[in-house]
Amino acid sequence: MLSNSRFLRALRREPVDATPVWVMRQAGRYLPEYRATRERAGDFLTLCKTPELACEVTLQPLARFPLDAAIVFSDILTIPDAMGLGLSLVEGIGPRFAHPLRSAQDIRRLGIPDPEDDLGYVSNAIRLIKRELDDKVPLIGFCGSPWTLATYMIEGGSGHDFKLVKQMLYDEPALLHQLLDLLAKASSAYLKAQISAGADAVMIFDTWGGILSSNAYHSFSLPYIKHIVDEVDNTVPTIAFTKGGGLWLETIADIGCSALGLDWSTDVGEARQRVGNRVALQGNLDPAILRAKPAAIIEQATAILNSFGAHPGHIFNLGHGITPDIDPENVAILVDTVHTASAAILQSAKHG
Amino acid sequence: MLSNSRFLRALRREPVDATPVWVMRQAGRYLPEYRATRERAGDFLTLCKTPELACEVTLQPLARFPLDAAIVFSDILTIPDAMGLGLSLVEGIGPRFAHPLRSAQDIRRLGIPDPEDDLGYVSNAIRLIKRELDDKVPLIGFCGSPWTLATYMIEGGSGHDFKLVKQMLYDEPALLHQLLDLLAKASSAYLKAQISAGADAVMIFDTWGGILSSNAYHSFSLPYIKHIVDEVDNTVPTIAFTKGGGLWLETIADIGCSALGLDWSTDVGEARQRVGNRVALQGNLDPAILRAKPAAIIEQATAILNSFGAHPGHIFNLGHGITPDIDPENVAILVDTVHTASAAILQSAKHG
Repeated sequence: MLSNSRFLRALRREPVDATPVWVMRQAGRYLPEYRATRERAGDFLTLCKTPELACEVTLQPLARFPLDAAIVFSDILTIPDAMGLGLSLVEGIGPRFAHPLRSAQDIRRLGIPDPEDDLGYVSNAIRLIKRELDDKVPLIGFCGSPWTLATYMIEGGSGHDFKLVKQMLYDEPALLHQLLDLLAKASSAYLKAQISAGADAVMIFDTWGGILSSNAYHSFSLPYIKHIVDEVDNTVPTIAFTKGGGLWLETIADIGCSALGLDWSTDVGEARQRVGNRVALQGNLDPAILRAKPAAIIEQATAILNSFGAHPGHIFNLGHGITPDIDPENVAILVDTVHTASAAILQSAKHG
Repeated sequence: MLSNSRFLRALRREPVDATPVWVMRQAGRYLPEYRATRERAGDFLTLCKTPELACEVTLQPLARFPLDAAIVFSDILTIPDAMGLGLSLVEGIGPRFAHPLRSAQDIRRLGIPDPEDDLGYVSNAIRLIKRELDDKVPLIGFCGSPWTLATYMIEGGSGHDFKLVKQMLYDEPALLHQLLDLLAKASSAYLKAQISAGADAVMIFDTWGGILSSNAYHSFSLPYIKHIVDEVDNTVPTIAFTKGGGLWLETIADIGCSALGLDWSTDVGEARQRVGNRVALQGNLDPAILRAKPAAIIEQATAILNSFGAHPGHIFNLGHGITPDIDPENVAILVDTVHTASAAILQSAKHG
């Protein structure tokens, strides 16, 4: 169906002609056309909540670079926003909730947002994007992990020391589990709606799983990611990404997701040795490398491709989101390098 | 010689009656007596540079808690300060250099500080502390890793995105290696002077090794930690601590240090399985747990002791420095728990 199915084939660990590549936050502030749309929208949340504008910025990087997937322009905090916590996103400061969770009562009062009534703008954006994409490349839907959402909802914004949420974790674990369970249910319904609207794959971003101890991660984050993966039930491929989760790749692979997202601290070849052929791997260039000269970008991207080798099941990406100060020309170099170098690696393995 | 040699015995992986414990930043702002001395000193650097005051705060936590080691009160940035970068430490903001390294010329101009002429206040503090300790517990000396020092010297303070140092790493690797080599030489001389003055063990803090890719860590951080360990040459035990280095424990253990410091993301029992009996392990309670209720502190500390098991070679510590908001009473509970619970675990293994 899709004219470019490399991304979905790699997620299913099927052979590809070249390694697919997309870039976390590829629709973002490093693109002047994004900044222009963003300015027209007025603020970040309006951009998220206006399907026509979300569609516009989603497609911008695809017009510039031969990326192998689109990802719906949105934010992981749409769910807590729909739960009534009053989200605002201040550039340079980050997200803030007007009504963070401060008591057991605050948590018990929360309901599960309806994916169409309360979060319909995301499904609508997906429908619009799918129409515009016209089956050229697949579209990724996403959500935050329950643990990651809980950190923002309890801290009231971007955690620094994660004081409040960790205190709840150790002093009131049952209450935190109650919140996480609710968020897992809300996220599952949300991803199912995104899939119904047309998302070809979904990714779960566990941005803050890596601040936990191994025990706490396996009790408070991973089971709730698994809950979502179970609910989505392989209707489409699932990618689980815990930033700072390199120590736990084996147990993350065990939850039944299609792929693991890797940050840049893990060597992708070693990661593959550890998890074998059970899952695809997505990653993992240090985004800082995009500030370097072309020679360094080419060298480092090629090193990752060589480390993974000519196996099926690699999706190239950064290890974290691209930052606003990157020259788009360097992204063009990266995407071209991934396609060209991987095609050569795959070809030579075939004939080797 | 020492009336309490648990810490040194554990570093040598010899049997102990109870697991030794000390706390990173144990002489610090969570203690009212520290805040009083600090106020008398006027500022943090004066406190570091006045041996009598550094000695006073070093001993404060030992007067309160039955800790198994003292660590000289100092800062990892004394070396760049002695190199003329103009260090200031602003509470709540962090370290700042008046003259960060901005060019190749800035780097070529740097010399190796003389440990007695330029950094004699640290050796003098050590001599004073050793006299006051009167062989009750061993004293730890320390330095920062060359990579970690380089991040501060190039960024000009606490890195957030480590933009400048990573750009140098990828665009001018030879220049960065030149700086790291100089810092390794300076740090080796500095630790040797601390050992001559009486330090019974030394620790190398690689606070920012964990922000690197696996390749970059093994090229730009670990070899320079090894350089220092080689130079110290087992005159006293050495502890290498890379925060966020849980993925690399095997290669860190290979450099010949006596012990690895662990942050809290690694399970200490799994870490021991990975590195075997080659090295001792130091860690690794999440400092956030000290904000929880006593029951949680006791449970989590005991879980770490149980995970390590009744083998020789464990030094209990936090996975990172204690924060200023901790109630000293919770440190008392922690230290008591470690001694009591570990004695029971070790006893029952002996008779089991």
